[in-house]
Amino acid sequence: MTSYQVALFQLDNYGPWTTTPSPRPEPTLQALQARLYADIVSAVGDQDGYAFYGRFDNMVGITPDLSRDAYRSIQRSIATTYPISVSIGLGDGQTPATALATATDRLQAAGSAQEADRQGVLAGETVSTPSPLQVAHFDIVDVTNKYTDQETAYETLLRVRRAVSSLSAYLYDATGAITFFVGGDNAIAVCPDLSADQYHEAIAHVNQECDVEFQVGIGRDIYPVTAGLEAKEALEVCRETGTRVEGPSVPAPGE
Amino acid sequence: MTSYQVALFQLDNYGPWTTTPSPRPEPTLQALQARLYADIVSAVGDQDGYAFYGRFDNMVGITPDLSRDAYRSIQRSIATTYPISVSIGLGDGQTPATALATATDRLQAAGSAQEADRQGVLAGETVSTPSPLQVAHFDIVDVTNKYTDQETAYETLLRVRRAVSSLSAYLYDATGAITFFVGGDNAIAVCPDLSADQYHEAIAHVNQECDVEFQVGIGRDIYPVTAGLEAKEALEVCRETGTRVEGPSVPAPGE
Amino acid sequence: MTSYQVALFQLDNYGPWTTTPSPRPEPTLQALQARLYADIVSAVGDQDGYAFYGRFDNMVGITPDLSRDAYRSIQRSIATTYPISVSIGLGDGQTPATALATATDRLQAAGSAQEADRQGVLAGETVSTPSPLQVAHFDIVDVTNKYTDQETAYETLLRVRRAVSSLSAYLYDATGAITFFVGGDNAIAVCPDLSADQYHEAIAHVNQECDVEFQVGIGRDIYPVTAGLEAKEALEVCRETGTRVEGPSVPAPGE
Amino acid sequence: MTSYQVALFQLDNYGPWTTTPSPRPEPTLQALQARLYADIVSAVGDQDGYAFYGRFDNMVGITPDLSRDAYRSIQRSIATTYPISVSIGLGDGQTPATALATATDRLQAAGSAQEADRQGVLAGETVSTPSPLQVAHFDIVDVTNKYTDQETAYETLLRVRRAVSSLSAYLYDATGAITFFVGGDNAIAVCPDLSADQYHEAIAHVNQECDVEFQVGIGRDIYPVTAGLEAKEALEVCRETGTRVEGPSVPAPGE
Repeated sequence: MTSYQVALFQLDNYGPWTTTPSPRPEPTLQALQARLYADIVSAVGDQDGYAFYGRFDNMVGITPDLSRDAYRSIQRSIATTYPISVSIGLGDGQTPATALATATDRLQAAGSAQEADRQGVLAGETVSTPSPLQVAHFDIVDVTNKYTDQETAYETLLRVRRAVSSLSAYLYDATGAITFFVGGDNAIAVCPDLSADQYHEAIAHVNQECDVEFQVGIGRDIYPVTAGLEAKEALEVCRETGTRVEGPSVPAPGE
Repeated sequence: MTSYQVALFQLDNYGPWTTTPSPRPEPTLQALQARLYADIVSAVGDQDGYAFYGRFDNMVGITPDLSRDAYRSIQRSIATTYPISVSIGLGDGQTPATALATATDRLQAAGSAQEADRQGVLAGETVSTPSPLQVAHFDIVDVTNKYTDQETAYETLLRVRRAVSSLSAYLYDATGAITFFVGGDNAIAVCPDLSADQYHEAIAHVNQECDVEFQVGIGRDIYPVTAGLEAKEALEVCRETGTRVEGPSVPAPGE
Repeated sequence: MTSYQVALFQLDNYGPWTTTPSPRPEPTLQALQARLYADIVSAVGDQDGYAFYGRFDNMVGITPDLSRDAYRSIQRSIATTYPISVSIGLGDGQTPATALATATDRLQAAGSAQEADRQGVLAGETVSTPSPLQVAHFDIVDVTNKYTDQETAYETLLRVRRAVSSLSAYLYDATGAITFFVGGDNAIAVCPDLSADQYHEAIAHVNQECDVEFQVGIGRDIYPVTAGLEAKEALEVCRETGTRVEGPSVPAPGE
Repeated sequence: MTSYQVALFQLDNYGPWTTTPSPRPEPTLQALQARLYADIVSAVGDQDGYAFYGRFDNMVGITPDLSRDAYRSIQRSIATTYPISVSIGLGDGQTPATALATATDRLQAAGSAQEADRQGVLAGETVSTPSPLQVAHFDIVDVTNKYTDQETAYETLLRVRRAVSSLSAYLYDATGAITFFVGGDNAIAVCPDLSADQYHEAIAHVNQECDVEFQVGIGRDIYPVTAGLEAKEALEVCRETGTRVEGPSVPAPGE
């Protein structure tokens, strides 16, 4: 049976901490969040998983192969490096969305994000044999010529964000994929097995809703980093040949 | 005359670099972007300015008091610390939006973001006496009880992002403010002088469009960090008293 | 047969780079070196190994369990994060010293540290079943009362460094251990199996040469982090009971 | 009258923290120390000062131009970024050594490094018009050919450390300079005004005591970064011409 593994990293009691004893200067909070994110991404990435900043105080990891010891080690490392601790909820499910929902449930059952005495919880279980997942790497067709070098930086930013939001909502509702902005004009969706047609529909939906055209490369593997590299190679094919959906493991339209 | 100072930090030739000689694993790119962002935020923040990650390869700074030497020092430091260089466009204008547009123009005039020989450009001029600006610090009323501890983490993420997008677009079109997500359920808008009524209208707009209710604290100063701390103190008043718009320097509705 | 695994991390062509095209400001070089060190320590530590900054451009890792893929992953991550690449020499031997000598030989055979075209080399082989090693964690008896709160900070610094140099040279010559300063008044020696008597002799030697008295906790395991935690627990016993050499796996004097 | 400004950064209650509630894994402590060092170096360097890691829990800054507000800002930033706070002692004196002694005294007067309730102290005063100082940048003649590519990495490390210790002790006793290892085969001495003869004597002393030959470039300025760049340029002259002591502001031997 298909089963994906997702980890939710949630900072403990972070909101209250940011204003205790009085509000802290924003740049120090931003730097803290960014470094925590970089460290979690690196720790998960060293074991071929992916992590995304989400809301920064709630980060999402796709972590097929980490043991409970490995999560404990990440928690210990954060507790020694930062003035804040992190709780982790582990979940599994037949789509990334349901796996993340399970992870959220388990963490919520262990206490509120703002309970002062919920610290360093590790809730839920690891999946012994996670299923291969699709990593879909999207970017916007010809973004530099069309937008970055033409519009103001802020208009391009709003445009990219709106397009990524539209894509995220569509894929979540239609397929149970979870999608994240990863900088520039790039978004990465972690998907159950979808067909090329489904990707074409997603692209068409965003194009209609936001007047922005995505192209996508798709890879497939148990390990997100491996699937992601396959996706990036496939995206290069889109860039070179002008196609919109590429990926060796994706059934062609009509198949 | 009102004049705001904005800096656009743009990574040089970043897109091509990420796929040369072959696509690089995503976690290493994410960590790079996050650390660069943390370093720019800290460098600008040390001089009481604000910076935002924007699209990560295009970051925005509100930097009233940095000299050209200070920008050059940031560029040098990045060139020594990272495998990538950064160009900076400086702009001024009567709103943050027009200042950022000017900064974008000047940088675009110096060459495309993907020209291999545009490296470490510093385009545009610093403003000698920038005007005080409003920093508006928004967050969502009762987010932990309503959403974080109730919905799945991903649904809350989509909800927060949609609300911030709606707020950003509204404030940009109506007032020339520029707005950025800063983690959790927080957004910071850098605004020209607005009235309390205008903030109430923005909150009402988002509530209607997204069914999410913001509250906002507002500060005012030449230095974003100073204005931002005043805004955060004002936001605490909202949290304690249930009001939606607070700030010592904002004319009350009807004034 | 006893066999230890050591890795030598050497920055490629670093010296010339620091002065090209003209000398770079020292703080940017220091920050670069410190962050590289932090990243290597973390990557190795995530797999229960130890790493030390050595000369910063030459760092030493005790890495029993890293695969060639894991080293390649560290190299790729550094090449994406920093403006400099790193070569790695792997060595094994019957003492940590001979293992490091082998690692050095293999790296030197692959080219000079200042050859521009030696980049990202991974020389040597991993050991399939490394032997348990002793980790000896030394600190100075009562350093805060005797020195930190009494002498000038610089005199204490010179004193600690002289003592660590004396300890390092003694242990290297007498036993083939390699010893590193790790901050404060702490030094960590990675040792072949030594007796309690041998540790007492090392302490006596330094006391006589430098008038500084060390105490030491010793742990033993294939994994340095595990051995190191045992060593730290043992050092706590020294602190509480006034003994000088403690460790569950070390034969008592005379045994 | 000559007056130098030195800052001593001391982590508060760090030793006890590293073993509470039980000893923490060494790699997390090393990464913490290295990142703190990188951040302090960068913050001080952004204002053209120098900082050195010293014992990591006690770092030394040469900070002619930082205001009390700037120190407070560094302390606040650390308290938000790390699980540990830092106290700062400011001192001035006619040599770097006496300035550091004064800084140490003032900090010791504010409480022991291991008092739990000494947190974030800023003791001492800033100097309004610090004197120009000499920055002497030493490295070892032909280190790569003679040592790095010939000896084992550990033997070179021991050799370099012994030579830097010898140099540090000599310059401290003879002139009141304070000297720090900065990676590779480089040491930086912050000196009162010395003659070329005095530098030749220091080099001769180390050569005799350790059989290692240094060369040195010297710069002079109120700002260490400026003086340091001048020193590095002068050191390039040594490398190219084979001289041992160079620097535009240093009286030639006999003058």
